[in-house]
Amino acid sequence: MRFGTVRKGDRTVAFRQDDTGTYYYDAPDVGALLEAGDWGALPAVEGPAPEEGDLVAPILRPGKVICVGLNYRDHAAEVGKEAPELPTLFAKMHTSLAGPRQELVLPAVSEKYDWEAELAVVIGSRVKNVDAAGAHDAIFGYTVINDVTGRDWQRRTSEWFQGKNFDASSPIGPVVVTPDEAPPEAGLGVRTLVNGEVMQSGVTTEMVFSPADVVAYISQFMTLEPGDLIATGTPAGVGTSMQPPRYLADGDVLETSIDGIGTLVNTVRIEGAGDDAA
Amino acid sequence: MRFGTVRKGDRTVAFRQDDTGTYYYDAPDVGALLEAGDWGALPAVEGPAPEEGDLVAPILRPGKVICVGLNYRDHAAEVGKEAPELPTLFAKMHTSLAGPRQELVLPAVSEKYDWEAELAVVIGSRVKNVDAAGAHDAIFGYTVINDVTGRDWQRRTSEWFQGKNFDASSPIGPVVVTPDEAPPEAGLGVRTLVNGEVMQSGVTTEMVFSPADVVAYISQFMTLEPGDLIATGTPAGVGTSMQPPRYLADGDVLETSIDGIGTLVNTVRIEGAGDDAA
Repeated sequence: MRFGTVRKGDRTVAFRQDDTGTYYYDAPDVGALLEAGDWGALPAVEGPAPEEGDLVAPILRPGKVICVGLNYRDHAAEVGKEAPELPTLFAKMHTSLAGPRQELVLPAVSEKYDWEAELAVVIGSRVKNVDAAGAHDAIFGYTVINDVTGRDWQRRTSEWFQGKNFDASSPIGPVVVTPDEAPPEAGLGVRTLVNGEVMQSGVTTEMVFSPADVVAYISQFMTLEPGDLIATGTPAGVGTSMQPPRYLADGDVLETSIDGIGTLVNTVRIEGAGDDAA
Repeated sequence: MRFGTVRKGDRTVAFRQDDTGTYYYDAPDVGALLEAGDWGALPAVEGPAPEEGDLVAPILRPGKVICVGLNYRDHAAEVGKEAPELPTLFAKMHTSLAGPRQELVLPAVSEKYDWEAELAVVIGSRVKNVDAAGAHDAIFGYTVINDVTGRDWQRRTSEWFQGKNFDASSPIGPVVVTPDEAPPEAGLGVRTLVNGEVMQSGVTTEMVFSPADVVAYISQFMTLEPGDLIATGTPAGVGTSMQPPRYLADGDVLETSIDGIGTLVNTVRIEGAGDDAA
């Protein structure tokens, strides 16, 4: 099954899709479905499949967006680090999220916007202090995120926060897929393309810490709640590690995809770029 | 003026206090008042002053809690760092907040819980890319937070997140005070006491980056919204820098105060401590 959120006029609506059709809920996003608890008991009305261009971020305002750094061995190596013994965690604010087809309008204060395709866990139930089995049960599904990062701002201080939180910089979606249809342990391809050129091509089985490991780890100190998101790290191929480094430019088309889930397609706009020509 | 949130039976209610009395709103917390926009236009009903013991976190589920590290020269020095050229930023999740009188029940996974008394900015209006004057206008008021930190977990990786996000570890409140009554530029005393002993005693004028500077800086890359919180860093006197280091123990009473705002009084409980004796 797949769940998503679609724009309908001036509001948004959550939907479910399976082999039998598309069903719309009286809920503004997938986050509201999950917070309501037993989504299966909520009434849903069959309707036409949504247009891809009308999809928005499945969860519009998650309570938490926690990210795991350096969680693929090849990516840790390309930035000169060992594979970590423990997960490296940081946070994105809800304001950093963008829709699966939204233009990414980025301020010119950073000159080094880079891509990080990632599998994101969507939490389905409230959990604290669970083991890997309990963590597995708490995972409602998976979605795609590109943790777009201003590398210069990320490196301004020891803490990465300010490079990871540019407004509407990080597309997410297009849908949330239940684990039976997109099991990361089966090895899902994770890719970034820029203007059609493949930049990242990894497999979810290359993760150092599995999604369930990460959920269990975090739950040792923090309660995870329905609708919380955990971005599980990016494989090798980021622009900052290329020779010479390569960053996103105004007009670039960023495609981010994971097998079995879908593809984000976002045009990059750097604020003020092209103004001279206008 | 002061604003707060008080428990009434099984719900919570926002209130305003000034020289004329206490006024209660049809809103579950100060965050809801701020999100509603023009709080001055909302109806309020006069009532008795709340009991201190009934106060809860003024903003129960802020959209963002952003923290500034190393923002007092004396604290940077005590942890062996230079005063920073740029703010060091990280995030706390809403689940890490606790009420002004709440017991702090901390998991035994950390053995190094430490205190960090801080002035917290409460954002009153939506701002992006403002200068210091615009930032000043966006500040609705100030409150007190103790950014209780598991030092061992903070240092597990380069990112401090996991030491800063233990559930219900960081008391906040007791109220939000408008800038005219508690102007940080006038030099407000910031204190932590443990079991009555003064551990931290700083002054807000010792900050490297003023509250308005920090708001303006963050707004370069991120939209700040009504009810967002920014913890502005802690003065010298944290336990980890004492000789020998000193950490919070089961039963300790943690008092955190800022002149003109108020005092948080929280008893620390370490999960499992004292079970042998029970």
